[in-house]
Amino acid sequence: MQEKLAQFKELMGTASDLSSAAALLGWDQQTYMPPKAAEERGEQLATLARIVHEMITSEEFGRLLEDLLPCAQSLDGDSTEGRIIFKAKKLYDKETKVPVEKVAEFARATTLGQEAWVRAKTESNFESFKPYLEKIVDLRREYASYFKPYEHVYDPLLDDFEPGMKTADILAIFSALRPQQVELIKAIRERPQVEDGFLKLNYPDALQWEFGVDVTRHMGYDWGAGRQDRAAHPFTTSFGIRDVRITTHIYEDQMASGLFSTIHETGHALYNQGIDWDLRRTVLADGASMAIHESQSRMWENLVGRSRAFWRYFYPRLQATYPAQLGNVDMETFYKAINKVEPSFIRTEADEATYNLHVMLRLELEIALMEGSLQVADLPAAWNDRMRDYLGVTPPNDRLGVLQDVHWSGGMIGYFPTYALGNLVSAQLWAVINKDIPNLEQQFEQGQFSALLDWLRKNVHQYGSKYEPQELVQRITGSKIDPTAYVAYLKTKYSDIYGL
Amino acid sequence: MQEKLAQFKELMGTASDLSSAAALLGWDQQTYMPPKAAEERGEQLATLARIVHEMITSEEFGRLLEDLLPCAQSLDGDSTEGRIIFKAKKLYDKETKVPVEKVAEFARATTLGQEAWVRAKTESNFESFKPYLEKIVDLRREYASYFKPYEHVYDPLLDDFEPGMKTADILAIFSALRPQQVELIKAIRERPQVEDGFLKLNYPDALQWEFGVDVTRHMGYDWGAGRQDRAAHPFTTSFGIRDVRITTHIYEDQMASGLFSTIHETGHALYNQGIDWDLRRTVLADGASMAIHESQSRMWENLVGRSRAFWRYFYPRLQATYPAQLGNVDMETFYKAINKVEPSFIRTEADEATYNLHVMLRLELEIALMEGSLQVADLPAAWNDRMRDYLGVTPPNDRLGVLQDVHWSGGMIGYFPTYALGNLVSAQLWAVINKDIPNLEQQFEQGQFSALLDWLRKNVHQYGSKYEPQELVQRITGSKIDPTAYVAYLKTKYSDIYGL
Repeated sequence: MQEKLAQFKELMGTASDLSSAAALLGWDQQTYMPPKAAEERGEQLATLARIVHEMITSEEFGRLLEDLLPCAQSLDGDSTEGRIIFKAKKLYDKETKVPVEKVAEFARATTLGQEAWVRAKTESNFESFKPYLEKIVDLRREYASYFKPYEHVYDPLLDDFEPGMKTADILAIFSALRPQQVELIKAIRERPQVEDGFLKLNYPDALQWEFGVDVTRHMGYDWGAGRQDRAAHPFTTSFGIRDVRITTHIYEDQMASGLFSTIHETGHALYNQGIDWDLRRTVLADGASMAIHESQSRMWENLVGRSRAFWRYFYPRLQATYPAQLGNVDMETFYKAINKVEPSFIRTEADEATYNLHVMLRLELEIALMEGSLQVADLPAAWNDRMRDYLGVTPPNDRLGVLQDVHWSGGMIGYFPTYALGNLVSAQLWAVINKDIPNLEQQFEQGQFSALLDWLRKNVHQYGSKYEPQELVQRITGSKIDPTAYVAYLKTKYSDIYGL
Repeated sequence: MQEKLAQFKELMGTASDLSSAAALLGWDQQTYMPPKAAEERGEQLATLARIVHEMITSEEFGRLLEDLLPCAQSLDGDSTEGRIIFKAKKLYDKETKVPVEKVAEFARATTLGQEAWVRAKTESNFESFKPYLEKIVDLRREYASYFKPYEHVYDPLLDDFEPGMKTADILAIFSALRPQQVELIKAIRERPQVEDGFLKLNYPDALQWEFGVDVTRHMGYDWGAGRQDRAAHPFTTSFGIRDVRITTHIYEDQMASGLFSTIHETGHALYNQGIDWDLRRTVLADGASMAIHESQSRMWENLVGRSRAFWRYFYPRLQATYPAQLGNVDMETFYKAINKVEPSFIRTEADEATYNLHVMLRLELEIALMEGSLQVADLPAAWNDRMRDYLGVTPPNDRLGVLQDVHWSGGMIGYFPTYALGNLVSAQLWAVINKDIPNLEQQFEQGQFSALLDWLRKNVHQYGSKYEPQELVQRITGSKIDPTAYVAYLKTKYSDIYGL
């Protein structure tokens, strides 16, 4: 059995190394790759993906897992060894259920889909994208069919991003959340708006970069095991536990955009840097799920980075960095500006109060598409209707509406809800953290974030994906994912800012 | 047969994609990788190397080659298809001759060897490096033994870098070359030295970068299919025909160093960018050999970049870039300074007149080590003796002597002679080029380098490694590699500069 375990680990480690190599090729593609290299890079990435797929769906891997499963079942439920085997088995089952030619067809459809989406978005022309999206939706429905029986056709898609989570759970969570967020936004809209014109002044690129780096250092990001580069769409990626890289964008007339993007990505990166070294080259060496990952990035971005305590420490430094732009702006005005609520068309630019509504709208449309109750042709109208209902605004065109996000063109149906779940989890964890560390705010005011990071390392990061998301949240907070804490957080925060 | 050919191409393409991925991991390691990532990166590179090795030594690959060989033999000797099969077969034979555990042992010995060399060089302590080098030399002798019968024990090593080249050929070439170079240096040493103090003034980093980029553009380097980054030891690498990257180093007090390094690497890069697109993902998609590669880099660096015609165009631009440093230096003084001859300890800093002697010394020692007529323990003394004989200088310590180069610690015995061969080939090609393009100098004087590049594309670059080095040189010049043209070039150049 020891020998089989060693063989299994060797195979898994090999697949992990190849995936890390692919991740580096992906990082390079979005940061430094020269434009004419796209075709060859595509071939290289396809080759790596194919070899990894062949490896983890191979008969050899399947046999090893069969042989190791009884052993894993005999172990303590909390055994890391056992969890690795279970997780690998789940992955194997998933990947072997779908015929390999379907995997290839989906890869082609999404490659074409993304190209078509780029053109369609530029021209704000949904019609040109429609046939591609129809194909993708068909293929996703077919994908789901390989996982019958299921409770809901959306479950298999969701499971790819949120292991163990069910559509019914999410719908229950979101229907509790939606009316409260809609009501909050209405209340805010009746109050006088906050002033944020000074955030649109010119903030020199180099100073923004430096200030962002300083913030990441305070947060505890290990620059010896990571780096920051520029990318059109900021992201975090890792090629191991000691190589976790962030990217950012900087616009000189949108200082807050780059800064909070850096904080957000650093939140993701701290998670990966904190995974137990012993989990490297295993299937557990990543976050528990997209939602748990997002709970980390959104916590640092919003609960920490948009808090008064954070800026009591950083605002004097920010003013000293930009005396001409911020010398006459007091901290309270700045605090309100970075927390301004304003219903808008674009999800990625949405504030905390409106963000989840963007997500819920997408989830509802995805479910309807998968159920077949909504046709792709009717998507733009359905989108605009919901924007009006939830946010009180109507996109003037599809570029600012249904065409804004890349996800569907890449076949990533089931991804969106994780953004909102991440927000909810961040607030649930936050409540526990504040009990465990009573003087958290005072620490922030002194630029100290290590107690928070230590708590996250101990309770979340170290485990990688050892626990499924609901299980992890239950372990830490005593309950599953739930909107109560997040709603309470939003109400307290915005009542104060907007005098509700 | 068509099906077998397709399978063969698919396997070769896969191996090529994985090698490209490994090359990107290597590039990243030397440019942007955070320091703590070294261990995981090592695992990833080892995994990629192992899989490529397994692939091209697999029974499947061997069988396909056996089946395809008669077909290749029936083709015209100049058929690219046939050449691909022959080259792959040669690779297969080489890689399968050496037991896989010996490959692993060599990989470990050279990893340890390089670490030991870094320490030994820092401390200038050859004794601490000696046991590692002894191990490496033993393993290389054993490696050669797998290729018996051979004419000379050094042949199999040389063949890894110069396909088809024999030790006897090189010794014949070098023994014709050596006395002429030694004599030239002696003659130069009796003449008054040229002034080059102004090259050591402060030249701001950003201006050096910009000027270098401008030169690469003139040379024809395609920035849409490549990029330049910084590295401690400049190198060129490619991950496909449309992604060929150069690196450079810039020292503010050594402007010429960074500039000629950029020109040198661009010479390599132009070769790879010029390979026929149809050769991508095949075993022919690289230069014909190290020497042919070096003939390109050295041609651009020296025959072009250190010529009067080149600087007639660029020197006014250089003066305008650095008015304080060069405003009072006339072109002739500058030209002499960048062509100053001065016997020195370090190969990589050697001028054109002395460079080959550094190489010959290494070749002679390598051959003696492989023959067993020289022991590793006696290497430092043998090194210093030859330095005195050939260059008239004695290294004050081993850091400036036998420990200066990384090659032996990495097991790269057989590599050095290619540097000198590259110089010889560059001059042989140059003679033909000047016949084919009579007004080459006038073109350079106007900043026009496209006729030269077109010639190189047509005669050298496009073929990749379709032809072996001697074959390629013969095709173009009508004779094999030969020192006559290079000696004539050196004599003409330095007679003029030093008034011999």
